[in-house]
Amino acid sequence: MKLIIVGGVAGGASAATRARRLSEAAEIVLFERGPDVSFANCGLPYYIGGVIEERDRLLVASPESLRTTFRIDVRLQSNVEAIDRVKKTVLVRDLVTNRSYEESYDKLILAPGAAPLRPPLPGIDLPGIHTLRHMQDMDRIRAAVDQGVKQAIVIGAGFIGLELVENLVHRGVKVALVELQDQILPPLDKEMTTPLMDALKQHGVAVHLGQSAESFTSSGQGIQVQLKSGQTLAAPLVILGVGVRPENQLAAAAGLEVGPRGGIRVNAQLQTSDPDIYAVGDAIESRDFITGDPAQLALAGPANRQGRLAAEHALLGRPVAFRGFQGTSIVGCFQITAAMTGASEKSLRRASRPFHAIYVHPSHHAGYYPGAEAMTIKLLFEPKTGKIWGAQIVGRHGVDKRIDVLAIAIQAGMTVFDLEQAELAYAPQYGSAKDPINMAGFVAAGLLRGDHPQITAADLLALPEGQRPLVLDVRTADEFAEDHLPGAKHIPVDGLRSHLGELPKDRSIVTYCRVGQRGYLAARVLLQHGFQVRNLSGGIKAYRMVVPN
Amino acid sequence: MKLIIVGGVAGGASAATRARRLSEAAEIVLFERGPDVSFANCGLPYYIGGVIEERDRLLVASPESLRTTFRIDVRLQSNVEAIDRVKKTVLVRDLVTNRSYEESYDKLILAPGAAPLRPPLPGIDLPGIHTLRHMQDMDRIRAAVDQGVKQAIVIGAGFIGLELVENLVHRGVKVALVELQDQILPPLDKEMTTPLMDALKQHGVAVHLGQSAESFTSSGQGIQVQLKSGQTLAAPLVILGVGVRPENQLAAAAGLEVGPRGGIRVNAQLQTSDPDIYAVGDAIESRDFITGDPAQLALAGPANRQGRLAAEHALLGRPVAFRGFQGTSIVGCFQITAAMTGASEKSLRRASRPFHAIYVHPSHHAGYYPGAEAMTIKLLFEPKTGKIWGAQIVGRHGVDKRIDVLAIAIQAGMTVFDLEQAELAYAPQYGSAKDPINMAGFVAAGLLRGDHPQITAADLLALPEGQRPLVLDVRTADEFAEDHLPGAKHIPVDGLRSHLGELPKDRSIVTYCRVGQRGYLAARVLLQHGFQVRNLSGGIKAYRMVVPN
Repeated sequence: MKLIIVGGVAGGASAATRARRLSEAAEIVLFERGPDVSFANCGLPYYIGGVIEERDRLLVASPESLRTTFRIDVRLQSNVEAIDRVKKTVLVRDLVTNRSYEESYDKLILAPGAAPLRPPLPGIDLPGIHTLRHMQDMDRIRAAVDQGVKQAIVIGAGFIGLELVENLVHRGVKVALVELQDQILPPLDKEMTTPLMDALKQHGVAVHLGQSAESFTSSGQGIQVQLKSGQTLAAPLVILGVGVRPENQLAAAAGLEVGPRGGIRVNAQLQTSDPDIYAVGDAIESRDFITGDPAQLALAGPANRQGRLAAEHALLGRPVAFRGFQGTSIVGCFQITAAMTGASEKSLRRASRPFHAIYVHPSHHAGYYPGAEAMTIKLLFEPKTGKIWGAQIVGRHGVDKRIDVLAIAIQAGMTVFDLEQAELAYAPQYGSAKDPINMAGFVAAGLLRGDHPQITAADLLALPEGQRPLVLDVRTADEFAEDHLPGAKHIPVDGLRSHLGELPKDRSIVTYCRVGQRGYLAARVLLQHGFQVRNLSGGIKAYRMVVPN
Repeated sequence: MKLIIVGGVAGGASAATRARRLSEAAEIVLFERGPDVSFANCGLPYYIGGVIEERDRLLVASPESLRTTFRIDVRLQSNVEAIDRVKKTVLVRDLVTNRSYEESYDKLILAPGAAPLRPPLPGIDLPGIHTLRHMQDMDRIRAAVDQGVKQAIVIGAGFIGLELVENLVHRGVKVALVELQDQILPPLDKEMTTPLMDALKQHGVAVHLGQSAESFTSSGQGIQVQLKSGQTLAAPLVILGVGVRPENQLAAAAGLEVGPRGGIRVNAQLQTSDPDIYAVGDAIESRDFITGDPAQLALAGPANRQGRLAAEHALLGRPVAFRGFQGTSIVGCFQITAAMTGASEKSLRRASRPFHAIYVHPSHHAGYYPGAEAMTIKLLFEPKTGKIWGAQIVGRHGVDKRIDVLAIAIQAGMTVFDLEQAELAYAPQYGSAKDPINMAGFVAAGLLRGDHPQITAADLLALPEGQRPLVLDVRTADEFAEDHLPGAKHIPVDGLRSHLGELPKDRSIVTYCRVGQRGYLAARVLLQHGFQVRNLSGGIKAYRMVVPN
């Protein structure tokens, strides 16, 4: 058995080492176009920021270790230019000698990755405009910063864009951030990005939403970027982080099926339309675990697991199955963590799935223990069964823990009722007797049981004028004085029972408090006295994420 | 509907507020023997240690808030002395006026909690010997420390005992710790407590394992404690943390069923043997979620959830069900976190369940990002199906996250194969592309698939002399020189393929490295060349947790 692997980073390197573990007899050849194998893409921004101090730490495995320990025939700076599916050969160009040669395969695994998008705009190739994919891209950007660049423009406010912004600011660079969407972190729902927007502003980052670059010109200050709005920005350093496109040319030229967004089509066994050719990693089109729809997602975790599975199927024909993309992702920026798993509200709307959304703001550990910090959890679930569709969390601490718990719950097909009963680890420095996960479960299950009718801020705001409910603030007088919803009536929850006569029975009421708990109690009181009432999910805190002050 | 609740801390307070939310009409009377409701038991050691600075922070809800906001008739310092199940009344003594009176109920919820054990030993009632349950116990211990006590003896090395030790050391107190078992943290398997033992020693704590106190006498230095070994310890402050017994006297006197270990028996709806009387919290006997056996467990999380469920069933007759105890627990001590969920190896052995155990030592986040710290995960699972039985984790960071992920996986009935495919949140400061959870899944699933035959250090050590395998160290020469297993042969993995002739085919071989990864590769090489081989699970690091140097 001769296995050829094209691409030596996450998925390719995983496939190669897994293949060797499974078979001592296999001949394994790994072609990598660049000079490095298995480097830590996700660490690149942190070397630019100086957080990771030693460049070598990013080289997770060396070609030597793959050769010596795993007996893998690693060929660097070797570009696979064509596949002959009939002869079962690949045409390889050695980029050092420029010599071409053929190599035969029994099974072929493609792990070419995805390339940063570089839109064909005027001036896009000017020196000073970078993308970030390889160690060499990183070196160029780091060199610019080391040379004392004081201003930069980052185009694209996705995960990598935000990590770049944080690391540049950390190096004392003043950053302007340009994003095409009307929000940062487009995979998340917009309101969940509000705390990160605040953090960006606090750190002096100029954020330009709903803007795109139209052209680039050379100027005295380096690069001048012309925005769609007509505004111009200028800085010696410009970094594009506007997404990636699957490296599908080799596959497409060989006649392998490619999806409409460019991903190489694979089945659950990671086989392309040619069963002897597999594809893994950022280059493929797989399925969305929640919706079942075709999906492309550039994530290191799935890439590694796909590499393992493809090797197992290619070598041994075992009945493996990749279960699709769940979309679990996380980013840290200026002490704020934002994370998601499963479907977002916007992806559910796009897929026309029925859903409920609730918001809670629990502390990351017991409130009586010093240092407790609130996080905001948005939980999305199926109205009939309570099955969890997705979750988003933003906060300072404990976000990664809760998103992983919810990621597993989604993988298991759990419902919000299961979250109510979750028995999680509690000591005061780690969690609460009622963990944030339980709290989200209580609130979501209460909605489904009819105990806790709720409305989201977005749904409240979307109601036509004539259907606007009476909005009832049940907090203290001081809290009301500080900020309240437009037109809100004020009756503190403690006195509510003796003021029922002031409320209408023929008009629906929305109660709210700071985070939702007192509003819930008020709604319970009113419900049982025959009022039509819903609680504003997540209280004024969630409202202010939709409509910032 | 008149609901009486006995006990106003975790389960009782949760039942009371839940009852009010469910019913505005119910009459709710809450009797509490002590002066406080709803205080944070789990915070008491941290107030003694000065970590929690304000005593009031431990008072989670005030009687006033329960009265005003929830219209609950809270009666403090009121001891319920008897239940008349025929008349459906309770006899209450007002501990302030010493007056007794009857109060009728439709439904009764017992939440009396559990009392610290105080074994009837000579001298046990001497002043200076404390237990820790209430705020007042805490005040007495803190007063002693505030007055400059320099030495203390903690008897019992369970969760609370260890938290007390840490907090006393934090206050400059020299501590001796006495434990009856031959290990600290008896719910965990012994080898998993080794890092905590090391931390205790590093912080100058004298740990006396396999020891019990036989008697206490007054001495010049305070209390002299006579140990079973004959040794005596002396200190002005002695704290007993040797377990709790359910407060079952009221229930037992009323003829309610009580289990052999003292827990008030309840069904899944939390009903005692009298369907109008419920019991929740530390006082009950419920079921072990893993084994289905009767179980008692004093944990705040389940107590709170039981209170909610009991109120829901008592008031509305809803089809609720408590799913039993999973035993998820966690403790932090001297920067080490130890946690468990589900069954332990010893509980599986007691229940005669078949199981496999594997060990892994992954980093809590990407190794290339600064500050990565290894944790040790022990995963226990069913040999046929791979269903997860339980897990234990010890380490410095990220332990709480992985135990919660595994707690949910156990709740969902997941297998080790599901852990392989888990899509968890990865950015370098939070996790790894192959998260510790994935790593545990890979290793466990590899064992079940036959790809990765393993043996635990305990099983290796338990083999009779004649069946001892050849032990093969595949690390580098430097590592071998530093420490190795007794009698180990040394061939580094990189050269293994050219030294196969030196190994026997007629004797079984156990390979090992530092943590298990190179040992796994070596085992794969040898397996495919016809050797009988297993890898030492978790490598020499796991071995040294069983047999410390």
